[in-house]
Amino acid sequence: MTYTLVLLRHGESEWNAKNLFTGWVDVPLSEKGRAEATRGGELLKEKGVTPDVVHTSLLRRAMNTANLALDAADLLWIPVKRSWRLNERHYGALQGMDKKKAREEFGDVKFAEYRRSYDVPPPAIELGSEWSQDADPRYAGEPIPRAEALAQVLDRALPYFEGEIVPDLKAGKTVLVAAHGNSLRAIVKYLDDLTPDEIAAVNLPTGIPLVYELDEFLKPIVKGGEYLDPEAAAAGAAAVANQGK
Amino acid sequence: MTYTLVLLRHGESEWNAKNLFTGWVDVPLSEKGRAEATRGGELLKEKGVTPDVVHTSLLRRAMNTANLALDAADLLWIPVKRSWRLNERHYGALQGMDKKKAREEFGDVKFAEYRRSYDVPPPAIELGSEWSQDADPRYAGEPIPRAEALAQVLDRALPYFEGEIVPDLKAGKTVLVAAHGNSLRAIVKYLDDLTPDEIAAVNLPTGIPLVYELDEFLKPIVKGGEYLDPEAAAAGAAAVANQGK
Repeated sequence: MTYTLVLLRHGESEWNAKNLFTGWVDVPLSEKGRAEATRGGELLKEKGVTPDVVHTSLLRRAMNTANLALDAADLLWIPVKRSWRLNERHYGALQGMDKKKAREEFGDVKFAEYRRSYDVPPPAIELGSEWSQDADPRYAGEPIPRAEALAQVLDRALPYFEGEIVPDLKAGKTVLVAAHGNSLRAIVKYLDDLTPDEIAAVNLPTGIPLVYELDEFLKPIVKGGEYLDPEAAAAGAAAVANQGK
Repeated sequence: MTYTLVLLRHGESEWNAKNLFTGWVDVPLSEKGRAEATRGGELLKEKGVTPDVVHTSLLRRAMNTANLALDAADLLWIPVKRSWRLNERHYGALQGMDKKKAREEFGDVKFAEYRRSYDVPPPAIELGSEWSQDADPRYAGEPIPRAEALAQVLDRALPYFEGEIVPDLKAGKTVLVAAHGNSLRAIVKYLDDLTPDEIAAVNLPTGIPLVYELDEFLKPIVKGGEYLDPEAAAAGAAAVANQGK
């Protein structure tokens, strides 16, 4: 018995193109991002990968990526589950800031730390400020963060993975998770049992389904999984890695 | 205590424009239909109508109408439930046929009966034929029809209304149902307690949310409900009524 888990990172959003820190700000996909999502769904169909259920974050760039991909795969009708626990990393006070301006304000060392530290989050967002989600009804009653590093993303994503995704896998379902660079890296770190340094070097390309076949203990049969379009994935991961440079 | 139910009929599909019988064939929205759905969501937002949960059919023109409308209303994140019981009327052997050609083949009397009889369905679709859904995995294990008149749509839609929609209403949720001309007419007939002749005269416009406030016995406080854009709704209903002429 093996299990099939498919990870899909959303494509370009309108703020990627503008070079702003996004985090939990609910920005729509750009036209390019919509096309990436559709291409992801076409790949599922071409390769015969057929999700039975989809899990998404509560952010429209991930939800619309799931919808566009599943529509292209003739699977828009499968059940949907959603949680803030699959949201992107919360960028704290950096949300809504221009990346170049943030680098000038905080200096190169702090800026690099805020972006890449495994467990030191950036400064917390001010409650009630323009880019804070504390009054957003979709998070009502939930213990949402005010800033996160990758370690905090793991802390809140893994209970959802164990509590909601694993039961679907164990029921024999092919599970699609449509989410974000950092919530998916949290899952990858857990599945592949990577150290903080190892996961720092992992860059997930956008819009290309990453398929993990898992053994009976939910361990990957091929470490790192397999992309449905490996050539495009390699190019995409290189592009992501170069973003900070 | 009152309850709020919002009905939304999907906009133009690619086959509306081509004058083909659609029924359960899973045709996408046209560009015009996508714009209608987005406008429906803008109306929800403008009028402060905030669904807590959405129910749709398993057909992409209704699912995408829900997604486009909810995205425009900043509500794409609310829970989604879906069922074939909210699908459009099954048009039987007429599915995929040109309407003009069908009128020539069956004659004016039979053609009018197939379109408008309350309880006599058109000829059943042949299993395994091009426009049959009997092998479609989304309906696996379900007692799906091979042809329906409105009476048969009521027979399969009302158990879903009672079993899935009413409990959401009674939990105090504002419920959006994004579906089709005939599955929504089935719900309207039931709520407004209309005779077969009365429901035959009801035409629902596309893309304009119809809001029913229901009393403690789930009876409409205003018979027929209230459209969020009454002027556009009257024009739209007249256009639908003229389609068969």
